[in-house]
Amino acid sequence: MILHSLKKLASFFPIVEWSATYNRPKALSDITAAIIVTLMLVPQALAYAMLSGLPPHIGLYASMLPLIAYGLLGTSGALAVGPVAVAALMTASAIAPFTAIDPDLGVAAAVILAAISGLILLLSGILKLGFLANFLSHPVIAGFISAASVVIAASQIPTLLGFSASGDNLVDILKSISSKLDQIHQPTVLLSLLALLILVLSRRYLTKFLLILGLSKFWAQTLSRCVPVLIVLIATLSVHMGLPVFNGVKVVGDISAGLPSITLPNMDLALWKALWLPALLITIIGYVESISVAQSLGIKRRERIDPDQEMIALGAANFFSGLSSGLPVTGGVSRSVVNADAGAVTPAAGLFTAIGIIASTLFIATWLSALPKFILSATIIVAVLSLFEADVFIKTWKFSKRDFIALVITFALTLLVNVESGISAGVILSLGLHLYRSSRPHIAIVGQISGTEHFRNIDRHEVNVCENVVTLRIDESLYFANARFLEKRILDILVEHRQIKHLILMCSAVNDIDISAIEILEVINQQLKESGIGLHLSEVKGPVMDQLKRCHFIEELNGKIYLTQYQAYENLSCFNN
Amino acid sequence: MILHSLKKLASFFPIVEWSATYNRPKALSDITAAIIVTLMLVPQALAYAMLSGLPPHIGLYASMLPLIAYGLLGTSGALAVGPVAVAALMTASAIAPFTAIDPDLGVAAAVILAAISGLILLLSGILKLGFLANFLSHPVIAGFISAASVVIAASQIPTLLGFSASGDNLVDILKSISSKLDQIHQPTVLLSLLALLILVLSRRYLTKFLLILGLSKFWAQTLSRCVPVLIVLIATLSVHMGLPVFNGVKVVGDISAGLPSITLPNMDLALWKALWLPALLITIIGYVESISVAQSLGIKRRERIDPDQEMIALGAANFFSGLSSGLPVTGGVSRSVVNADAGAVTPAAGLFTAIGIIASTLFIATWLSALPKFILSATIIVAVLSLFEADVFIKTWKFSKRDFIALVITFALTLLVNVESGISAGVILSLGLHLYRSSRPHIAIVGQISGTEHFRNIDRHEVNVCENVVTLRIDESLYFANARFLEKRILDILVEHRQIKHLILMCSAVNDIDISAIEILEVINQQLKESGIGLHLSEVKGPVMDQLKRCHFIEELNGKIYLTQYQAYENLSCFNN
Repeated sequence: MILHSLKKLASFFPIVEWSATYNRPKALSDITAAIIVTLMLVPQALAYAMLSGLPPHIGLYASMLPLIAYGLLGTSGALAVGPVAVAALMTASAIAPFTAIDPDLGVAAAVILAAISGLILLLSGILKLGFLANFLSHPVIAGFISAASVVIAASQIPTLLGFSASGDNLVDILKSISSKLDQIHQPTVLLSLLALLILVLSRRYLTKFLLILGLSKFWAQTLSRCVPVLIVLIATLSVHMGLPVFNGVKVVGDISAGLPSITLPNMDLALWKALWLPALLITIIGYVESISVAQSLGIKRRERIDPDQEMIALGAANFFSGLSSGLPVTGGVSRSVVNADAGAVTPAAGLFTAIGIIASTLFIATWLSALPKFILSATIIVAVLSLFEADVFIKTWKFSKRDFIALVITFALTLLVNVESGISAGVILSLGLHLYRSSRPHIAIVGQISGTEHFRNIDRHEVNVCENVVTLRIDESLYFANARFLEKRILDILVEHRQIKHLILMCSAVNDIDISAIEILEVINQQLKESGIGLHLSEVKGPVMDQLKRCHFIEELNGKIYLTQYQAYENLSCFNN
Repeated sequence: MILHSLKKLASFFPIVEWSATYNRPKALSDITAAIIVTLMLVPQALAYAMLSGLPPHIGLYASMLPLIAYGLLGTSGALAVGPVAVAALMTASAIAPFTAIDPDLGVAAAVILAAISGLILLLSGILKLGFLANFLSHPVIAGFISAASVVIAASQIPTLLGFSASGDNLVDILKSISSKLDQIHQPTVLLSLLALLILVLSRRYLTKFLLILGLSKFWAQTLSRCVPVLIVLIATLSVHMGLPVFNGVKVVGDISAGLPSITLPNMDLALWKALWLPALLITIIGYVESISVAQSLGIKRRERIDPDQEMIALGAANFFSGLSSGLPVTGGVSRSVVNADAGAVTPAAGLFTAIGIIASTLFIATWLSALPKFILSATIIVAVLSLFEADVFIKTWKFSKRDFIALVITFALTLLVNVESGISAGVILSLGLHLYRSSRPHIAIVGQISGTEHFRNIDRHEVNVCENVVTLRIDESLYFANARFLEKRILDILVEHRQIKHLILMCSAVNDIDISAIEILEVINQQLKESGIGLHLSEVKGPVMDQLKRCHFIEELNGKIYLTQYQAYENLSCFNN
């Protein structure tokens, strides 16, 4: 009994399993990855805190305990948890009204967002509700992320120009910028352009260049990835040295150098009430981003990712972010790819990264107070522009107009109104369009292809048809939303085929049937019986047959159930009767 | 051009088509049905008006123009339009707050409900939104109607006891009754019991008895159906004659004997705003009731029912009810069955019924002012108790627990809270449970049955499996809500089958694929390619193949698409390589 409980408990801590086979080579590999991710994460943590409108150290706080929590509970060895751009934008939008009142209240709100997000994820993971995140369709996610990347980039333009501006959507941000154009700080603009140029060029060409110079692939990639942190160091050093061109350039200022203390978030009920909906949206978007990258990396790595356990792990990460004054976190796409490439083999890589961040905070944070803000903005812009997927629009348009509508509406609302309305409209639209399609399924009249046992659509193929027998192939599971559509179709067929003696429903693509469909089939059967027409089923699947046996439909059926369509047709067609 | 426009216009008036072949025998048959339906409808019109808390003549008004509108526009020859019990209850619940202020305001509200309902139906019919009604699943409808029948029956008990009471749900009604038990009027109770007894016994046994007496089936049925109207006549006559036992019995009082004048409903915007949601629910429930009976009678009668045209016809019926001071109407189930049995062949039967109601109103309405209320209540109770379907609960429980949950929750909320919350919860629950199921589809690993070309689930059948090749049969269309489920399943298989060389997805039951699923298949393909594993598809349907061709999936596929699963297995399995 105790052993069973212990096993059960251990199943909540994947670390128990993977640490059993942990060894020196794995540790070395994990530590290498952790160093590279740390170098990447330090400027990102500061940048995403700034993007949220929070003091920079909040980003660092969110990169300590959350990483440890995920390391103990997570199932992906590649996932790199921490602050990410899109969640930071959503946080910014949610806490803006509070920051406007008092910056400290804004921080309290961000911490509550993390705590609520953690509680939602923990609860959903325990109740195994991970599947709910699947209801965000790809067009909705792509539309949302693309629009968010544009809004994020636009929100950083003021910093590049040397002033600050605000706004929830593209229109507001552009308005705010245009009203402040007289505040442009020339040296900041020039330095910003330089930083952007270096970041873009190094991102695109540096690895190739270093490979040509003869560096190994590992070092070429690693050095390229360190460009952002190098720029941060150089710019900060320049300010400390008092380079004249940096005169008047805004710096992040006052980074608290200590470690976070563990405290409960502000328990003001009104704050929690105002923040639960944005927290829910941050949770959903964050979880989808995280599980997508974990699963797609998992296929290559042959790693078993448990979506429910991932919810628990990310839930704990956010909960501890909330307990240690951090903002909402999740598994970031690009950081996780870097982590995997750099050799991370187990979640221990995250534990080592946390140590790296703690060390950085203790030793260089105060010195980083002189870091110019525009550097962080340039980092953000270069990072998020890769999130904008222009080809998704073309691809989706070609593939399906229905999916395209969901994509464009999510994109437009996120860009022009705000994050919440974009996602909500996208989800409702996706579900609605899906239900609409399944409510009017493809139903074909089929006939026999001469000399074979195959039956095909009479509109597409040359087939034999006996005029007393009509066979309908139903290409959809039958449920309440489409059962009446089938009834209407049968009604039309009865009017068009007045000589009909037998109606065969070919069920090879019916995967499920619900009681609404059964009720309608019973009515159809009853009415056909009274008209002297036989109703037959063919190629009914095992699970559907089990369902039919649970009611009286088979007993009352005015006809037979045939294993194959060929048998049904052989038995009923005019050629034999 | 003009001819085309005329034809187009004519298509909105099915009467143009059926009247072309109208003749004397059809007219005689329709008139017979109309007489029987009129005799049934007069007491029902009064009763359902009373059930709505409206003056009795409103029920008669709703049985004139609406029937004519449906007769000109409807596609069902069997459907008998007019006030029905469930819509009357919903009307009562919607207008109660207004009736409490001023009975005239209550009437105005009922008229607005009819007008809004008419506009919603007309608009939906023109926009071809009839399919939306299909999202009410059978358990939701059954649960709702059963609960409504109990609430309606309970609401009539006070009248049987000789007083009046109110309430939106069973609890409130029972509370209201128990607080007034001292007001019981003994003679009313005795007469009520007598009326109930006659109605129940005649409903159950009179037809059989008359058949034994040697009457033809037509006359036996017709006389049985006239019992309610006979009781109405006898009771009214008794009051007019001053029979002492009727002393102190409440009568309906003052039925306006004139015809309705055509006037616009009250245009107070606040009223319309308060009533649009209940009007929408009345519309949906009314339409579903009507289209269900029209389609199921249509199958037997070989009648082509057009769901969108039905919306237009019922929309016009309600709109004209609103223009002539009537309450919301729809096609009633029992009345339509009687109409069909009595020989109605075309919608002209409804036109003749309207004439019957107009004649009755002009000639006997004033005389009916002396009709005792308890007679109407007894009529209502006997009519609605047949709506309660106890066996649906058992049948649904046996068939599917998921459907049962939707049924019970709709039933309980309608019974204990109110009509609106019952339906809303039911619809959301049905959709949620359906989406939940389709988000975790049945995916089976299949193997070859020895010596055949058939492939079956390895867990259910003795099959041959080559250990380098895994075949997954996906029993569901692939879309955003289940694509990640498939990805997870493939991930698990890769972990379990480390020797795998080829993965075949057997798509015989995949009826549709969306871009979210394509994106995930592309990720799977990419990751499998990097791991040196082939990804193949088999038995892809024509429409799905068309979809795949609209993107680059096929070009990038690290494997082939096979026409049949047998070919795929033959080609890839270890027995051949």
